[in-house]
Amino acid sequence: MERVAIIGASMTQFGQRDAWIRELLAQAGEACLDDAGVEGDDLDHLYVSNMASGEFEGMTGVPNALAHDLGAMPAYTQRVDQTSSSGGAGTYAAWQSVASGASDLTMLVGGEKMTHKTTAEATDVIASLTHPVEYKHGVTLPSFAGMTARHYLEKYDAPRESLAKVAVKNHENGLDNPHAQFRKEVDLETVLESPIIADPLRLYDFCPITDGSAALLLCPESVAAEYTDDYSVITGVAGATDTHVVHERDDPTTMGGVVESGREAYEMAGRDPEDIDVAELHDMFTILEFLQMEGLGFAEPGEAWTAVEAGETEKNGELPINTSGGLKSKGHPLGASGVAQIYEIHKQMTGNAGPRQVEADVGLACNVGGFGNCVTTTILEQA
Amino acid sequence: MERVAIIGASMTQFGQRDAWIRELLAQAGEACLDDAGVEGDDLDHLYVSNMASGEFEGMTGVPNALAHDLGAMPAYTQRVDQTSSSGGAGTYAAWQSVASGASDLTMLVGGEKMTHKTTAEATDVIASLTHPVEYKHGVTLPSFAGMTARHYLEKYDAPRESLAKVAVKNHENGLDNPHAQFRKEVDLETVLESPIIADPLRLYDFCPITDGSAALLLCPESVAAEYTDDYSVITGVAGATDTHVVHERDDPTTMGGVVESGREAYEMAGRDPEDIDVAELHDMFTILEFLQMEGLGFAEPGEAWTAVEAGETEKNGELPINTSGGLKSKGHPLGASGVAQIYEIHKQMTGNAGPRQVEADVGLACNVGGFGNCVTTTILEQA
Repeated sequence: MERVAIIGASMTQFGQRDAWIRELLAQAGEACLDDAGVEGDDLDHLYVSNMASGEFEGMTGVPNALAHDLGAMPAYTQRVDQTSSSGGAGTYAAWQSVASGASDLTMLVGGEKMTHKTTAEATDVIASLTHPVEYKHGVTLPSFAGMTARHYLEKYDAPRESLAKVAVKNHENGLDNPHAQFRKEVDLETVLESPIIADPLRLYDFCPITDGSAALLLCPESVAAEYTDDYSVITGVAGATDTHVVHERDDPTTMGGVVESGREAYEMAGRDPEDIDVAELHDMFTILEFLQMEGLGFAEPGEAWTAVEAGETEKNGELPINTSGGLKSKGHPLGASGVAQIYEIHKQMTGNAGPRQVEADVGLACNVGGFGNCVTTTILEQA
Repeated sequence: MERVAIIGASMTQFGQRDAWIRELLAQAGEACLDDAGVEGDDLDHLYVSNMASGEFEGMTGVPNALAHDLGAMPAYTQRVDQTSSSGGAGTYAAWQSVASGASDLTMLVGGEKMTHKTTAEATDVIASLTHPVEYKHGVTLPSFAGMTARHYLEKYDAPRESLAKVAVKNHENGLDNPHAQFRKEVDLETVLESPIIADPLRLYDFCPITDGSAALLLCPESVAAEYTDDYSVITGVAGATDTHVVHERDDPTTMGGVVESGREAYEMAGRDPEDIDVAELHDMFTILEFLQMEGLGFAEPGEAWTAVEAGETEKNGELPINTSGGLKSKGHPLGASGVAQIYEIHKQMTGNAGPRQVEADVGLACNVGGFGNCVTTTILEQA
């Protein structure tokens, strides 16, 4: 099977944006075309990862609008939705389109416009991905995060501070990301004294609601050098589901979708956790960074917190995690988040991460839908 | 590139169903697993084609719920949306998942639950796929159909009756389809005297609003015989866009997405229009059957109506079109329609179409999103 390369990538300013979804997608799409020096009408396929433009803005058919805006007609287009992991799913779909031979040049654009909604309105849309009984009983994704965090801390006798340190680290990394929603240093005290959201988790344990977009351009590796010297290669990509009803899981501190998608991605890439030099994890809640570290084999079960306490996941540590600032500081525009994760790893692989650059030959991104209901893991390597 | 086979297919009763989207999808999924004699946990990938479960029912994350209901975990899952052609897009996505080597067994389940909404509410959701300015000015998809029909009839000096004959034919075919929403013979007079919807088109020129689901099971052709003798092969599949703004098209009677996706599908299959023995076309409006016949090369521009008048597209004609009854009689549950088209062609290719069976070695399905905004064309052949 021929390998697939990423020859272009972009992301727009994440935060509160005065632009509707169509404009956000077009901005990322145009920047990505520019990054690779290609035109819209060079595209064979154009995929859009987006969870809910219909619910958030009353707009569907957005991929067609984007094909118009990028001058991509008659490129084939469709929307990929896997709720909060739509960006990872879109990356997998774009990879499939090239790997299958259906397309020689595929662009994926992920985006979401959310901040015009109140938190309650946005929660209504996001919570529609959970089992209806869960939401009816008042259990939202943050509730699951709180319960899981309490369980983890007690089970492994971990200090509350270790979770807060994830937030502190990711906010520090975000200072160097010009696209991040919050470029703001946060100290331990601020996290620990912020308002309680879902005990023991507090405001600064959560990512914000965000508008934004990001894009990737994929082609067969054999022709990548014709476009650019700055390309990376997708060596592993896979996705997996866990139970739709969260309480049906055997162990709340193990995310089955993370474990299984990671296992498959490692196998495809011929890599082990030890080979990964940099990772973007889905830190929608601080506790999720622990669970992904353990699920992906970066730490033994119950030991992610000690790695964080020891500074191993900081930018200068053994395995830098979320050099981009993560969802925590960068923001979480649902359909864009997974794409922006790959953007960061691609920049790291091509040596173009600027002040965020670390030494890395192999990178991994993990995008989590729902509370781990569906997860995609992607491994990128230097060309 | 290894070819991809269809080893199982199902569709549920189309019509007004007392079941939510999750149940509809599970019913088609289970029937399709049974058809191929496999279990849910044999699946590698599980795709759902659906336009708007969030807008219609306030439910997202439906693919995860379906993975649970079919016992398919940890199969990877995602939703494919391309508005009214989501089923064709889902077929293309499922094909890519197998052709890329990502999956050895992929199920696609398409479905939509719509009839609990009023026509006005459903129109609000469907019209959200058009350019906002079009809808704000009162132009819906039926309006486009009316204007295009008038243009076609005048341009080619075609009789109004020729359009009505599409409806009469498809309703007659639908009599033999136990899953059709309307198993009801309709005569020319009834069509021509039904209430005007978008002049010159009347009620019986339009498909209904429908609940329903359908499913397909795909694997590499090399292993298909291990599952069943009754399999067909996807020899061509492609998709293409036309302008998002309908009035920007050069010629309203030419659907660019139909022409381009057809051209690519023929090329991939090494087939010509003359090779096609049976076809399912997207007759959301009677005029669309003419435009697809001409766009796909079954008739010269301006001559589809003469072929219909001559009875060439009837079940016993030279090229039977919509032996299933089409969207017109069978119904149009958005995300399911394109899947049900392939279901019909698969049944024709495997000799299992019962009273609808025609003599056919090669079949084609054309699924149209919006007013031709995005189109997928699939060619199936006997194994």
